[in-house]
Amino acid sequence: MAGRERLLVIGGDAAGMSAASQARRRRGPDELEIGVVERGRHASYSACGIPYLVGGDVEDESSLIARTPEEHRERGIDLRTRTEATEIDLSGGRVRVRDLEGGAERWEHYDQLMVATGAVPARPRLPGADAEGVHGIQVLDDGIRVRRVVERDKPRRAVVVGGGYIGLEMAEALVRRGLEVSLVDAADQPMGTLDPDMGALVADALRGVGVKLRLGEPVEGFDTEDGRVTAVRTADRALPADLVVLGLGVRPGSDLARAAGIETGPTGGIVTDRRMRTRTERVWAAGDCVENRHLVSGAPVAIALGTHANKQGRVAGINIGGGYATFPGVVGTAVAKICEYEVARTGLNEREAEAAGFEALSVVVASTTRAGYYPGATEMRTKLVAERRSGRLLGAQIVGREGAAKRVDGLAIALWHGMTVEEMTGLDLGYAPPFSPTWDPVLIAARKAAERVEEDLRSAP
Amino acid sequence: MAGRERLLVIGGDAAGMSAASQARRRRGPDELEIGVVERGRHASYSACGIPYLVGGDVEDESSLIARTPEEHRERGIDLRTRTEATEIDLSGGRVRVRDLEGGAERWEHYDQLMVATGAVPARPRLPGADAEGVHGIQVLDDGIRVRRVVERDKPRRAVVVGGGYIGLEMAEALVRRGLEVSLVDAADQPMGTLDPDMGALVADALRGVGVKLRLGEPVEGFDTEDGRVTAVRTADRALPADLVVLGLGVRPGSDLARAAGIETGPTGGIVTDRRMRTRTERVWAAGDCVENRHLVSGAPVAIALGTHANKQGRVAGINIGGGYATFPGVVGTAVAKICEYEVARTGLNEREAEAAGFEALSVVVASTTRAGYYPGATEMRTKLVAERRSGRLLGAQIVGREGAAKRVDGLAIALWHGMTVEEMTGLDLGYAPPFSPTWDPVLIAARKAAERVEEDLRSAP
Repeated sequence: MAGRERLLVIGGDAAGMSAASQARRRRGPDELEIGVVERGRHASYSACGIPYLVGGDVEDESSLIARTPEEHRERGIDLRTRTEATEIDLSGGRVRVRDLEGGAERWEHYDQLMVATGAVPARPRLPGADAEGVHGIQVLDDGIRVRRVVERDKPRRAVVVGGGYIGLEMAEALVRRGLEVSLVDAADQPMGTLDPDMGALVADALRGVGVKLRLGEPVEGFDTEDGRVTAVRTADRALPADLVVLGLGVRPGSDLARAAGIETGPTGGIVTDRRMRTRTERVWAAGDCVENRHLVSGAPVAIALGTHANKQGRVAGINIGGGYATFPGVVGTAVAKICEYEVARTGLNEREAEAAGFEALSVVVASTTRAGYYPGATEMRTKLVAERRSGRLLGAQIVGREGAAKRVDGLAIALWHGMTVEEMTGLDLGYAPPFSPTWDPVLIAARKAAERVEEDLRSAP
Repeated sequence: MAGRERLLVIGGDAAGMSAASQARRRRGPDELEIGVVERGRHASYSACGIPYLVGGDVEDESSLIARTPEEHRERGIDLRTRTEATEIDLSGGRVRVRDLEGGAERWEHYDQLMVATGAVPARPRLPGADAEGVHGIQVLDDGIRVRRVVERDKPRRAVVVGGGYIGLEMAEALVRRGLEVSLVDAADQPMGTLDPDMGALVADALRGVGVKLRLGEPVEGFDTEDGRVTAVRTADRALPADLVVLGLGVRPGSDLARAAGIETGPTGGIVTDRRMRTRTERVWAAGDCVENRHLVSGAPVAIALGTHANKQGRVAGINIGGGYATFPGVVGTAVAKICEYEVARTGLNEREAEAAGFEALSVVVASTTRAGYYPGATEMRTKLVAERRSGRLLGAQIVGREGAAKRVDGLAIALWHGMTVEEMTGLDLGYAPPFSPTWDPVLIAARKAAERVEEDLRSAP
């Protein structure tokens, strides 16, 4: 049918559905037919909300679903769940899909293809990893399952494997449910994207809420009994567990695209330009399956995060819809809450700065979230990493309590613009005693860093 | 004594003491003698903390004092309180000072002069304005006095005249003390630096906490009995009052400098360059007495705010101390808390944008401070003002509850860099459900504004 194109979207989560929605906004059903295939039962849900569903902060799983398949269909987007794309045929302009309920397979034609296949969780090839009671936390159904286990089986001891964001959030969730929680990580600190000094503050915070930390202990396997997990085994010990949660990070889910010949990069993510076009004609990609440019290091990075997926999906959808939009890259911002503690980072940490070829220096300042005399002021620590000599901001890390983490936004925008720490000291940030000391913690840190840069210049010109 | 210079600072508050401290950091007592004269009894205190002292959030006035005169003297800064500068003799390089306790006068020599004379409160020339029970809120002693009145005399009805930040904060403080509070303003809305639609939200918030608003009612005088105020009189009514607080704004306290021939600008503030040098040799100025360049409009503005005073004082002190630092200007950021409500603004509002010669458009979006499903998520409204055609951000206003106001920081930095709303949609802001929806309210507003700019271009190319 001349004039009517068909957009096929593989993956019905943040990136895929954002793209579909934006394309639909710009081109009506007479111009553009939109089909979406999604392997899971759910689409358009907040994967980041899963720990809060498990922890009980979120009552009902339906709260995490932004839009049901029916709502999408009413808007002229033919979304089919439990349908898996198994092969992309680029020369034929078609995708093979399988109905996971009935098992039927067929080819679907496309004029434009959007790849939004998300991330694949790292799952250890270790004895017992598939035992009952060992749970990944990837899709909404995982969260629903763990919550049901917690509520029904009342497990007493949980072991979380992996100290990244999802691991920490799950540890908090299980603590709040009253479980004894241990967190195991091969690294010497939780939150490996922080420098060790700031990671140590997070470790203290975790201990403070009752999480037992087993750091520097790689997991070697899982003890089982009748197919059920009973303990997590490290070189040093066996940690008894009624429930094990794996939070070992993810990699870009680019296998399907790569198998078809769509170019992927050094991170394993699909390579796109700023309009989210892959190197293959008529094929777009967005979300956890792509790699991004890090605006500070200039290097490609793969960062699985719902907010990037949404933005990239929007950009792809605008472009597919005939508009013009770009996604310039990321600066690596991330925030997390662990009980009353807040953690944030953006840009490069010391190790990353060095790896990217920068000569860096850093400062850590202790300040308060509000004026010191204002009720509820709490201490927060801000670390800045800056380039020696130039004073260009390279990265920032924050550990504190309420009101600390979102201060990373200003630092992320400063990074975005390549500001020096000296320039940052002049920034016109909001000040009133309930919100900040006269010098906002961000400005105090910038001042201190500017002083360090100056001292450093003087001592080693 | 050759080689030993003398810095004389007029005004021992934020700007003056920051300058003195920075100059001292860089030049020791052998190189630089530093004298400070301060009219009041206190130096280095947080004037912005006064409403919280009155409201009882801050127990003790000493909490508001960052450093006592003794502490300054120990650091080699000869600070004399209750000492007023009455005349500057530029050709003689000296300042006439009067001891306000003893009455003695003398001339003090300077090599470098720092003018940090602060702001002068607007005080209406109206019948009864000097009656007992009518209080300005300018210096710490004013706050101490009002607090004592509230605690000792237990007044029942208070009238706050003026709906700016200080007026609102004082209204909150008195509500929290259990008084019946009315707020009178000649304008049709409180918080005149917001657009009327956002000001109306603030008015609702004030009514919600029990403040009676009398808007569009200029004060015509004060009824008194035996020298004590009994009511505030407007054209429409007499508002009975046991206590009246004047929060009518301030103007730059530049009279002393102007009388000596130091150049002031159209705002009445002292003109400085970016290093905080006045147009007069060896004379520096900083704080509420100077005028600043507004980085969006390019026009001079006078904004009395402790955070600017601190920054400018620091810059002046570094330069006086032989270093190099600049204060580039302001973007007009301000935040305030009124009971559980938070208000923020930065840049230009619609009226200011028009006055500055911009063709502007604006959007208002309602979103939430956290993911909608996360406990404690509250609604916040974000308004963006952008230039038509280019989409350059010109200003922003926020009204919400906890977690809303400090989001203005990111907007202030975006303004600082002249970002367009379309560029802003890509910003890598912190996202996790306890801190933000997948799209941060700032990004939602930027998206909406970018869409408006595009629609506008299409409808009126």
